[in-house]
Amino acid sequence: MQHHELQSEDKILFFKKEYISEFVYGGIDGSITTFAVVAGAEGASLGISVVIILGLANLIADGFSMSVGNFISTKASRDNFDRHKAREYWEVDNLGATEKEEIRVIYEAKGFKGELLNQVVEVITSDKDVWVDTMMKEELEMTKDDKTPVKTASVTFFSFVLVGSIPLLAYIFAGLDSGIAGAELFLYSSILTGIALTIVGALKSLVTERNMLVGIAETLLLGGLAASLAYFVGDVLEQVFM
Amino acid sequence: MQHHELQSEDKILFFKKEYISEFVYGGIDGSITTFAVVAGAEGASLGISVVIILGLANLIADGFSMSVGNFISTKASRDNFDRHKAREYWEVDNLGATEKEEIRVIYEAKGFKGELLNQVVEVITSDKDVWVDTMMKEELEMTKDDKTPVKTASVTFFSFVLVGSIPLLAYIFAGLDSGIAGAELFLYSSILTGIALTIVGALKSLVTERNMLVGIAETLLLGGLAASLAYFVGDVLEQVFM
Repeated sequence: MQHHELQSEDKILFFKKEYISEFVYGGIDGSITTFAVVAGAEGASLGISVVIILGLANLIADGFSMSVGNFISTKASRDNFDRHKAREYWEVDNLGATEKEEIRVIYEAKGFKGELLNQVVEVITSDKDVWVDTMMKEELEMTKDDKTPVKTASVTFFSFVLVGSIPLLAYIFAGLDSGIAGAELFLYSSILTGIALTIVGALKSLVTERNMLVGIAETLLLGGLAASLAYFVGDVLEQVFM
Repeated sequence: MQHHELQSEDKILFFKKEYISEFVYGGIDGSITTFAVVAGAEGASLGISVVIILGLANLIADGFSMSVGNFISTKASRDNFDRHKAREYWEVDNLGATEKEEIRVIYEAKGFKGELLNQVVEVITSDKDVWVDTMMKEELEMTKDDKTPVKTASVTFFSFVLVGSIPLLAYIFAGLDSGIAGAELFLYSSILTGIALTIVGALKSLVTERNMLVGIAETLLLGGLAASLAYFVGDVLEQVFM
């Protein structure tokens, strides 16, 4: 029953909440990093072809690197849990007296004493799985991350590339021969990126269960600041190097 | 005692392990994403000034965005824990009978029964903190992330910018007037980035407690693949757009 309760709580629309969270963070990172390339290139007056080329190259490479990094760290966290669990099983087998004493200390801290404490320790330590489970949760305070590394990495990549391509749309569709000025394309790109960040920021508030306007404002501010930094660096370096 | 044991286990050199982990992931992401810009620009034959300008703009903007994103998600995860905990306190106060029954189900699953089960449920539910703590760990399987959002974000930014600037060093120090060919600078940059990824990959294996050679190989492979993708995209798009 408790499990059922958790599952329904953890679903939003048709997705499991955990994967919405990957979608949100992948999308925010993708659009902000790509928009930073666009803004840096605009600040340095680098031309439309540079924006498209480096924007796309960065999108693919960074999206790939972020999702593989995500895969490695999700997997590392699960492996870490499994390793600690295996160690606890070993300790229960080989250092039973010490581990039993630790169970006693844990349950004493919960308010158990005397004969009742003895009985509780006996029941817990009579089942090796319950014993180890108690050590994991109470001593190490570890719970298993139930996300699948392959799924979190796939959703991250998909979202990174999908949302991250939005800042480049104006440049790609206008193309090189449209005669539209770079400043105008940059304006369109800013508007499109703003809309994308608003949607992702709203989704984020579903994940964090916080006020939607705060989620949107936070995300727009983050994107705006990162892009301003990139624009400023591009602008200053243009004067130094070009 | 158990707490002390955990702390010493979680320290590497003079750092707490959790912050080494931020250093490692920030450093990997910073160097790979910057090297991708370098490789993409090299693939598209874009010239040294473009590499320096967009490399630095991306480094600052992406480092900023990644660390603020890190801050927001660490904070969201702690807030999420606090919100669920507050909800459990509310449920204990207002739906006491249901929550008490849930404690009974949890301890029944651990092998307790009869009069002993009754007594255990009484002791657990006689202390509201112990009661809620049990619900958090056993029903929701949540433990509090003890990382400080400000610290994780700062370490991430520092490491992202520090390690991430390595692929640009050859370009910055050779400068525009050195007469050194772009291909030669790209070679130096690849070697320096390879060394940086080797060091960070070795550090990573300290965090994941896995074989050091695997950690290094994994990190080098990831960086190499991301850079190859960027080079390839840059190369193809150069033929399309320039």
